[in-house]
Amino acid sequence: MERLSVRQARQKEAIGQQAFVQGWIRTRRDSKGGFSFLEVNDGSSFGNLQVIAEAALPNYETEVKHLGAGCSVSIEGEVKASGGKQATEVLASKVTVHGWADPETYPLQKKQHSLEKLREWAHLRPRTNTFGAVTRVRNCVCRSIHNFYQEEGFLYIHSPIITASDCEGAGAMFRVTTLDLEKLPLKDGKVDATQDFFGRPSYLTVSGQLEAEIFACALGKVYTFGPTFRAENSNTSRHLAEFWMVEPEVAFNDLNDNMSLAERFLKRLFRDALSQCDEDMKFFHEHYDKEIISTLEQIVTKEFIRCPYTEAVSILEQCGEKFEYPVSWGIDLQSEHERYLTEKHFKSPVILFDYPRSLKPFYMRVNDDGRTVRAMDVLVPKVGEIIGGSQREERLDVLTQRMAEQHLRAEDYWWYCDLRRYGTVPHAGFGLGLERAVQFITGMQNIRDVIPFPRTPGSADF
Amino acid sequence: MERLSVRQARQKEAIGQQAFVQGWIRTRRDSKGGFSFLEVNDGSSFGNLQVIAEAALPNYETEVKHLGAGCSVSIEGEVKASGGKQATEVLASKVTVHGWADPETYPLQKKQHSLEKLREWAHLRPRTNTFGAVTRVRNCVCRSIHNFYQEEGFLYIHSPIITASDCEGAGAMFRVTTLDLEKLPLKDGKVDATQDFFGRPSYLTVSGQLEAEIFACALGKVYTFGPTFRAENSNTSRHLAEFWMVEPEVAFNDLNDNMSLAERFLKRLFRDALSQCDEDMKFFHEHYDKEIISTLEQIVTKEFIRCPYTEAVSILEQCGEKFEYPVSWGIDLQSEHERYLTEKHFKSPVILFDYPRSLKPFYMRVNDDGRTVRAMDVLVPKVGEIIGGSQREERLDVLTQRMAEQHLRAEDYWWYCDLRRYGTVPHAGFGLGLERAVQFITGMQNIRDVIPFPRTPGSADF
Repeated sequence: MERLSVRQARQKEAIGQQAFVQGWIRTRRDSKGGFSFLEVNDGSSFGNLQVIAEAALPNYETEVKHLGAGCSVSIEGEVKASGGKQATEVLASKVTVHGWADPETYPLQKKQHSLEKLREWAHLRPRTNTFGAVTRVRNCVCRSIHNFYQEEGFLYIHSPIITASDCEGAGAMFRVTTLDLEKLPLKDGKVDATQDFFGRPSYLTVSGQLEAEIFACALGKVYTFGPTFRAENSNTSRHLAEFWMVEPEVAFNDLNDNMSLAERFLKRLFRDALSQCDEDMKFFHEHYDKEIISTLEQIVTKEFIRCPYTEAVSILEQCGEKFEYPVSWGIDLQSEHERYLTEKHFKSPVILFDYPRSLKPFYMRVNDDGRTVRAMDVLVPKVGEIIGGSQREERLDVLTQRMAEQHLRAEDYWWYCDLRRYGTVPHAGFGLGLERAVQFITGMQNIRDVIPFPRTPGSADF
Repeated sequence: MERLSVRQARQKEAIGQQAFVQGWIRTRRDSKGGFSFLEVNDGSSFGNLQVIAEAALPNYETEVKHLGAGCSVSIEGEVKASGGKQATEVLASKVTVHGWADPETYPLQKKQHSLEKLREWAHLRPRTNTFGAVTRVRNCVCRSIHNFYQEEGFLYIHSPIITASDCEGAGAMFRVTTLDLEKLPLKDGKVDATQDFFGRPSYLTVSGQLEAEIFACALGKVYTFGPTFRAENSNTSRHLAEFWMVEPEVAFNDLNDNMSLAERFLKRLFRDALSQCDEDMKFFHEHYDKEIISTLEQIVTKEFIRCPYTEAVSILEQCGEKFEYPVSWGIDLQSEHERYLTEKHFKSPVILFDYPRSLKPFYMRVNDDGRTVRAMDVLVPKVGEIIGGSQREERLDVLTQRMAEQHLRAEDYWWYCDLRRYGTVPHAGFGLGLERAVQFITGMQNIRDVIPFPRTPGSADF
């Protein structure tokens, strides 16, 4: 007998097959006619398989009639056409129970739990409709990320997680150590880092960009996709201490190429989620955000707006809207400004570019005007910034000048400078936070609900 | 004019096309006939594109004749059939130089450098034949990993990198902290971990298995693929402090299913590398290991041997071979024993299973004999253990007994126990170290040469 997934057994092509299906009971409903309906799920699809268990089953009274949410079962039987909403159902010839879930103590009973409560049960929440759907959409986005870049001829690169550069400047870093904190070795009254595992202080990476540039400047088109860390004490619905980031980097690309890549990439993620997770997306539409599907459908067909920072500032200055933070050329745009631009002014995703030089890191290419750099941010409604990137400074003299401007020592970046010293090329790249993308697609409001085990200040459970 | 990759321009389908190719010079050879051959590579394939630059080019004397290894160029021209070994060549109508590489100072001149030396230049080594090939094969393996599991209906899960369980027991762990080591907060004379970022001591993960089990016990078939850490002070050619691991976990699978999955999975990786990286594999065959291709070809067609630990011990006891470590039932097999089994006795990959209970972690399922557990190791010639896995203990009473046996506190694993308390299922999984797999496929002897930026004791450069 063939092992079928719930997804397979629900398709009308399966009608007539003998099926062996394994999964967990979602609900049991006893019919007056002397049989029971079992709703079985195995994670392969949002929808459940309806199983009909007749009273003639030898364990009907002793077991089947005691099944409830969370019990694990194997079902043998025939797939039949169903008269109900679903295309098929299985008439069970055998029901085997593997594990019970005592309804008195099992936390996931039929009643709805708040998302906050479910965070405390991160080991059980994947068994709920919401987190099953989030997991499938997140998986779909990851698959699309790899498919997109592989189809375009990019090489997947693993940039290091532990780094000894404390100078990346993208945010506060976690220190990594094997020193015994209770007995730190000292030298001249200070902690002797030469005795640490790597012989010097080391940290968790905040970005794989600089290392990705190494590979782009050797092999052309590359991307990283891995965990990234911020030790910032920000307890918001948009920040995690540990999150996944995808960072493409392309030799010979300029900022326009970079914008086109970002747009094509995001549209692919959205299109795949809509087409490959339709049941899950319907669920998010019904339970979390009535606009989510129409928003995504619009975005994949429309061209993204491209707007220079300077023009965006003019729009904001002249729009008559009252902002908490006043707008003028040179300021770092706040969330309220970004939302005004995407949600009210353009009603579309917007790529802002050519930001003031003073706002951006040393590695972004300086424009001929001397005042701006070839930076870009992709903003989407509700979530705000979803992608940040730039064309990189490929001119060694300008790069070292920019480092000096920002009080960085060129010696610390000797290898980064070498990329410009030997066979330098124009190149560009960007970073997409996976969780922001999944939040945008699913409409989940809190970023802690789109990652399996969120790490936030004070919380590293499971 | 279309931007073509070197790979595309080398295919005979490209003949007749106007091409725009960008990359780096590998070599320049001047012909007596008054023109030059440029070998150009852009990472898209092992082989270079041959470009013919005629003296009539306006910058022929001033630039083209000064091009050397490492210089970056854009080439415009027509793709023509070639009389040489390669199918095509490009007759350049324009050569633009983007970046020079001074032959006096550029470290990668034509002469061969040792792999050790190249490790010091990890920012330049991707520009060499060897590391270009390693990068493409590693990329191919990663793509195959995702394709294999996605095609089989698995969900990709991100298990956490930072964990507060210091009790995983799989090896020494790195501590992660935001405390200022120079001013550690104390409480009762000890470091006050409640003031650390997560409110308690936290570490880098050694395995995502336990968290993968959470998802397998909710959604059926899942896999993790992410970085993993060992703070062990072992400076060998087979160990890294940071490496990538893929860990599938499947509800309702027993140990036999697990072995079949592992075998199918490995064969897929090897088959894809052979068929999708043929030029790179030929290079490894010629320069690193004359047996590598034939070994892989044999493995993908043969069934793996499955041999219980007890039988393997008998074979080793009776084989007459002199081992450094004597063999008897109950010992942990050493590399010399494993190599004897795969290389001399079976001449094949071998899956050993049913190991002594005392050798293995608490979570492996106890056999009815009471002496052994449902563990398995997949051994391959030369590399040794490449996969380790087991059927998990799904019976709560046996699990808690095993924890007690190993002096673990069930309270620390409350959520892991919950998986057995509510709807428990038989399940199984394993881990494959990505770098071991890439080592085996490429024949590279040192694991530091199959990861972009190796982290080892005393070394976290780049």
